[in-house]
Amino acid sequence: MNAMTTAANVTGQDRKTPGRPRSAQADEAILDAVLELLGAGHSVAAISIEAVAAKAGVGKATIYRRWPNKEALLVDAVASMKGPLPEPTGQSVRDDLVLLVKANRTGRARRYGKVTVCLMPEFVRDENLHSMYQAVIEPRRDLMRQVLRRGVANGELRADLDVELTLLMIAGPSMMQSLLHWNPAVQEEGFAEALVDSVLRGAAA
Amino acid sequence: MNAMTTAANVTGQDRKTPGRPRSAQADEAILDAVLELLGAGHSVAAISIEAVAAKAGVGKATIYRRWPNKEALLVDAVASMKGPLPEPTGQSVRDDLVLLVKANRTGRARRYGKVTVCLMPEFVRDENLHSMYQAVIEPRRDLMRQVLRRGVANGELRADLDVELTLLMIAGPSMMQSLLHWNPAVQEEGFAEALVDSVLRGAAA
Repeated sequence: MNAMTTAANVTGQDRKTPGRPRSAQADEAILDAVLELLGAGHSVAAISIEAVAAKAGVGKATIYRRWPNKEALLVDAVASMKGPLPEPTGQSVRDDLVLLVKANRTGRARRYGKVTVCLMPEFVRDENLHSMYQAVIEPRRDLMRQVLRRGVANGELRADLDVELTLLMIAGPSMMQSLLHWNPAVQEEGFAEALVDSVLRGAAA
Repeated sequence: MNAMTTAANVTGQDRKTPGRPRSAQADEAILDAVLELLGAGHSVAAISIEAVAAKAGVGKATIYRRWPNKEALLVDAVASMKGPLPEPTGQSVRDDLVLLVKANRTGRARRYGKVTVCLMPEFVRDENLHSMYQAVIEPRRDLMRQVLRRGVANGELRADLDVELTLLMIAGPSMMQSLLHWNPAVQEEGFAEALVDSVLRGAAA
């Protein structure tokens, strides 16, 4: 269900066009352009395909060959911000949760954390954009859900664990801290481990 | 340290001026006007004292008699959004925490939750506004800190509890859920109790 991947297959021939960015580079330049415009405070409504094309150094047609419309482009831009889905090893609930928390706080996710904050008012104002946001985060939330369910099933976690609330108890503090630096007195060093260990102390069987 | 209270004392004579809102009503109309402008998506930079005065139905001079500048007005508007500081009873850590979580999710706090989200990008962009936000939330954070420290001191909570992380573990999920509805699968009914009980399960002595 990734518009970028689908479109990249269709436009594979772009790779051989001289004087224009190769396909993967163009994709990245286009997604970066969207994120930079959002990060600079432009609203979703104010961002045009023209502006994205100009910033990315590609033609409008290049964007339309890859994405059918602005919304599809935006979904991929926000998803790219998060980086590829991490892969839990399945050995320990604790290690898998630490891996998932760290994946949301490093690399592109960190670089574009500001973009997420800039989009929040839009998510609150616009039901469609909120659904889009939910579609982007659901695969990651579900990855963590599977880890917790595995822990309940194998007896590592309490049988009566409220899995959905526990997801929020891991993601909420992590987001409020990385996006808004909500409590300046909380140590950044070792944060993922400390958070997961605290949550698991109450969630353990 | 509340600019509104100080200014209200100075302008007590306003109460007797016919044809203009009484002092307390004017204060509320002015603060509401600021919050409505913010909630409608106007940036802090774009909001003028003129616009606030027009929306509140008062003269600019009325605003300047109460607040020395826009920043002071903004601090009071955001603080008013939160409502008066709740008063923990000091009988049970659990009941006090539930009270504090609920206080951030009801009344004005709920009505203007959207405003907080709209301000988030500003907090990230502007160091001064972020400090202002911290100044507004610190008294509430400290109230919760005192409840946790009391619990550690009287043996209800673990002696080695990370109090600052625990504050984030209570506020983070509550905010992400009330502001962004982060996990639609989490029940709104009984949320404060469920969250506090889950956190305390790991924090208990």
